[in-house]
Amino acid sequence: MNKEQLPYVGFLGFDVFGTVVDWRSGIARASEGFLSKHGLDVDPYDFADEWRALYEPSMQAVRAGERPWVPLTVLNRENLETVLSRHGADFAGITNTELVDLNRGWERLDPWPDAVEGMRRLKKRFPIGPLSNGDIAGMLNLGRFAALPWDVITGAEITKSYKPVLGTYLGSARAVGLEPAQVAMVAAHNQDMQAAQAAGLRSIFILRPHEHGPQQATDLTATGKYDIVAESLIEAADALGCK
Amino acid sequence: MNKEQLPYVGFLGFDVFGTVVDWRSGIARASEGFLSKHGLDVDPYDFADEWRALYEPSMQAVRAGERPWVPLTVLNRENLETVLSRHGADFAGITNTELVDLNRGWERLDPWPDAVEGMRRLKKRFPIGPLSNGDIAGMLNLGRFAALPWDVITGAEITKSYKPVLGTYLGSARAVGLEPAQVAMVAAHNQDMQAAQAAGLRSIFILRPHEHGPQQATDLTATGKYDIVAESLIEAADALGCK
Repeated sequence: MNKEQLPYVGFLGFDVFGTVVDWRSGIARASEGFLSKHGLDVDPYDFADEWRALYEPSMQAVRAGERPWVPLTVLNRENLETVLSRHGADFAGITNTELVDLNRGWERLDPWPDAVEGMRRLKKRFPIGPLSNGDIAGMLNLGRFAALPWDVITGAEITKSYKPVLGTYLGSARAVGLEPAQVAMVAAHNQDMQAAQAAGLRSIFILRPHEHGPQQATDLTATGKYDIVAESLIEAADALGCK
Repeated sequence: MNKEQLPYVGFLGFDVFGTVVDWRSGIARASEGFLSKHGLDVDPYDFADEWRALYEPSMQAVRAGERPWVPLTVLNRENLETVLSRHGADFAGITNTELVDLNRGWERLDPWPDAVEGMRRLKKRFPIGPLSNGDIAGMLNLGRFAALPWDVITGAEITKSYKPVLGTYLGSARAVGLEPAQVAMVAAHNQDMQAAQAAGLRSIFILRPHEHGPQQATDLTATGKYDIVAESLIEAADALGCK
């Protein structure tokens, strides 16, 4: 392990939800008071899981060209209303302001304990930024909330596409003025890693075995051959010689 | 002067060339060795002025719809070749690598002495970022070079337009999730201020009487009524209660 790893890389693009921040605890925390106030009998962690479960299918409609690209904040809001409907929420008693605020829970997520220190160290050698399906405003607000020291925001909004479509990776590399091989994707999901590799990016896999809670069954190991596999962003920084 | 100024503002968008960084000295410094090596008898400051003088007309072709939007790095490169041609440069003796490197001079400009400290203080209260005609890669690289602590990059590339077209301001506000009136433009140019105001933004004018060197004749005073007029970003931070 030394500084010569990934010598040609000039940008680290981060997956954010799950890789950098703990969305499940954060959304459960943001939802708890709302669910209780409106008499919805659902565990806040289950509510977070149900809301998040709609994330992939809602992006799929955009990827498939069935609807034009819209920011993730819009999809999250739609999905929130779907989940609330399933639990029989009485929308007549819920204000738009409450829904906007609850949806902003996605901008108030805590970083994993290693994330800020790991990014701070990686940033000494590499420009860093989200290469996420989050939109610019969402990433900006989350970055401020969680003190994530990124240099630029790439990903879905600047490419008008959703990972794992290859255009999200390719357009993000182009936006930072680099070839795909000069960008490394940092993510906790094998699907993201493999799409990034297919686009020609380098790959840094971070194990996040508790993203989905104690029962997590996915992404517990690296299922592909990646440039770096690490258990935290601090370990990734160590592997890249970033003190 | 107290913290209650601009209470509804949630983002400061910065003009960069001239307002945050001293492009004239930086481009003169970047050009000097090149001009000498290639036997071009032109003062580096004059060369910087001539190169910069092509900036407005080159963007105008895009604004007028005569050509599709291209990143500023592309316009700067074209303009560089135009200026070199005027001085009789022998392109057969100049490599592409040399031209790329000289063009990167726009990413290696020193901040004005007050800029980093002023931005650091403003950032405590406000999210900050370029709302510039520079492209994402150029702003990213310049931000790293000059240690500019911005949170996001807005402006020309995310809106595919060039200031003072109103869409650059409006699209930047939209990208950060705010109404125009919740964004303040920070710039050293009256034209930029007035276009920002026309788009509904708030206005923070910074006097930069030496941007164009000792003979500067433009933008020596505020020619409109702006929310704040300051002689430095530190003075603007003071005016906004940012310690």
